[in-house]
Amino acid sequence: MHKQTIKTSTIHYDVIVGEGLLTDIAQFLPKNYENVLIVSDDVVEKLYAEKLANNLSHIKNVNMTSVPAGEGSKSIDKYFELLTEAINHKLDRKSLIIALGGGMVGDLAGFVAATYMRGIDFIQVPTTILAHDSSVGGKVAINHPKGKNLIGNFYPPVAVIYDVTTLRSLPASEIRSGYAEVVKHGLISEESFFNEVLKVDLTKPLDPDVTVEQLQKGIAVKANIVEKDERESNIRKFLNFGHTLGHAIESEMGYGQITHGEAVAIGMLFALKVSQENYNISLPYNELYQWLAANNYPLMINWPGPDMLIDKMKLDKKSENAIVQMVLLEEVGKPSIVNIDDHNLRIQLENFIRELGSL
Amino acid sequence: MHKQTIKTSTIHYDVIVGEGLLTDIAQFLPKNYENVLIVSDDVVEKLYAEKLANNLSHIKNVNMTSVPAGEGSKSIDKYFELLTEAINHKLDRKSLIIALGGGMVGDLAGFVAATYMRGIDFIQVPTTILAHDSSVGGKVAINHPKGKNLIGNFYPPVAVIYDVTTLRSLPASEIRSGYAEVVKHGLISEESFFNEVLKVDLTKPLDPDVTVEQLQKGIAVKANIVEKDERESNIRKFLNFGHTLGHAIESEMGYGQITHGEAVAIGMLFALKVSQENYNISLPYNELYQWLAANNYPLMINWPGPDMLIDKMKLDKKSENAIVQMVLLEEVGKPSIVNIDDHNLRIQLENFIRELGSL
Repeated sequence: MHKQTIKTSTIHYDVIVGEGLLTDIAQFLPKNYENVLIVSDDVVEKLYAEKLANNLSHIKNVNMTSVPAGEGSKSIDKYFELLTEAINHKLDRKSLIIALGGGMVGDLAGFVAATYMRGIDFIQVPTTILAHDSSVGGKVAINHPKGKNLIGNFYPPVAVIYDVTTLRSLPASEIRSGYAEVVKHGLISEESFFNEVLKVDLTKPLDPDVTVEQLQKGIAVKANIVEKDERESNIRKFLNFGHTLGHAIESEMGYGQITHGEAVAIGMLFALKVSQENYNISLPYNELYQWLAANNYPLMINWPGPDMLIDKMKLDKKSENAIVQMVLLEEVGKPSIVNIDDHNLRIQLENFIRELGSL
Repeated sequence: MHKQTIKTSTIHYDVIVGEGLLTDIAQFLPKNYENVLIVSDDVVEKLYAEKLANNLSHIKNVNMTSVPAGEGSKSIDKYFELLTEAINHKLDRKSLIIALGGGMVGDLAGFVAATYMRGIDFIQVPTTILAHDSSVGGKVAINHPKGKNLIGNFYPPVAVIYDVTTLRSLPASEIRSGYAEVVKHGLISEESFFNEVLKVDLTKPLDPDVTVEQLQKGIAVKANIVEKDERESNIRKFLNFGHTLGHAIESEMGYGQITHGEAVAIGMLFALKVSQENYNISLPYNELYQWLAANNYPLMINWPGPDMLIDKMKLDKKSENAIVQMVLLEEVGKPSIVNIDDHNLRIQLENFIRELGSL
């Protein structure tokens, strides 16, 4: 069991990573609560919600609810439904929402907690690799049909309790999705971490010790950046490496057609390509490409038109004044933020799509 | 032109009160903006939006939108529509939303600003007396069918620019609604302020100098409390004087059937009554009753059942663990927070309704 404390301007909270925490969760609650709502998705609920609730039997009111699994539930409708459930279960300002699930559940239930009665406590209990990323940093959001995470808040949880035994139930595409963010944390922090990650073979059962170690490192990279820049005015944008195109692909293909991390993986390849071009340097593009291909990441996708993608990239929250901003690498471990004009972006994107398609 | 600076944990912002500020607003913007969305209601838009926009002609993109006047627009649907408009007008993280209107517009547009791309700048330009209250303190929210302001954030504006000449267009019910909050600020701060307010005759045209002075005092009372307690854990609850029953009446009668302040006026009478009973003291119940009656406040209302009201009072955000909390007065200017058990509450509410009905 490992503990890191994340410091934000408003609160400090612990991220606890370990095996079997789900059946031992009561001891990690930072306060006494009388009314708890566990929010999950319908897949995770069946696997773990009962187990979690049993461990909270000392609490007066513990209720469970779930939304359909998948990004489609990060909608204004599900958001409103969960608020209604919170009211029906009589949650008040001292109540707690537990987000049990992956990034979708964390984002959705977190935004409900952030806005219910102007903000009540919530705890993240991640059940995916991807959630090592999304559960740290205090971003909560839902999607708008015109763009991902366009509606949300900065709202930190009061704790993150990460039971890695839940990762065993993940399908292969979710393992790929989560590991893309681990790769990202390597690329923006240090080459040795990146190289370690590329040694992992995702087609075989994960070695728990390696997974825990790499998740912790990933969390540390993210926490370090988030602590220095809570509201994404500056270095926090580095975490967006691979996400500008990644989000556009995800949004244009339709959520559910490709996982978040798989789209980000393609976005990272593109960001490496643009970086090489922009700085006239060599980066481990081929190494990453080979690893992604060997691990069955979808790289030959049904590409949306470049114009649609560029429009979406402009809609990205991180873009300013309708110019696309990308995170590039000056070298591995040294990210920087660069404005890319439309003309240049279009040429590079077309070349990239052509090259990727023909490989 | 008078300026007060409100200090919150995250930002300091100015509240500027004066005559004719609407045509001189550019000089009060705290930053340069390239993209501004003015959000108003359909009544206020016709009166003032053009005037305001003309004064911002130096800004590249200025767009206007409005929702139907009335509390009914503080809905999840209008909220989502405005978010969509913000996207369509390509607002980014450096853009500005101006809330031009009363409390409804401020709450709704403020919540849009708070959650659009996880928070962009917004400025309140209040056009009602009531908004002297709602525009200060950083509370933004929309309503849920099951309760008022149940969905929202604490999110301060970057400025409040209050042009009192806009108050001339207010209907009588809106003047009553706003003045109820001025009365409240008197009752929870000091007797002399309260007594001054009771000298005002709302059935005659308001004296601008008196109005400006009393609005400023009201703002100062609120600002003083809000600065000490931003997130309503403690003394900020004092501002809820009259609101526990007031919100329940408003919600049970249906928004639009009675104005916010008119409902709060009845709630203040009830709170004075309960205070007298609870502390065995004498308070200016009759003085307030006479003033409200003389100024045409609706006091003989079509009362919802006590059970319905008590249920709503429990739903109030300020209640904790399903016990109704009320703000009482130990004396004028000395509020305190008291838990009232259901049985006692029911008896006092029934007596109050009977007495008010028969007067």
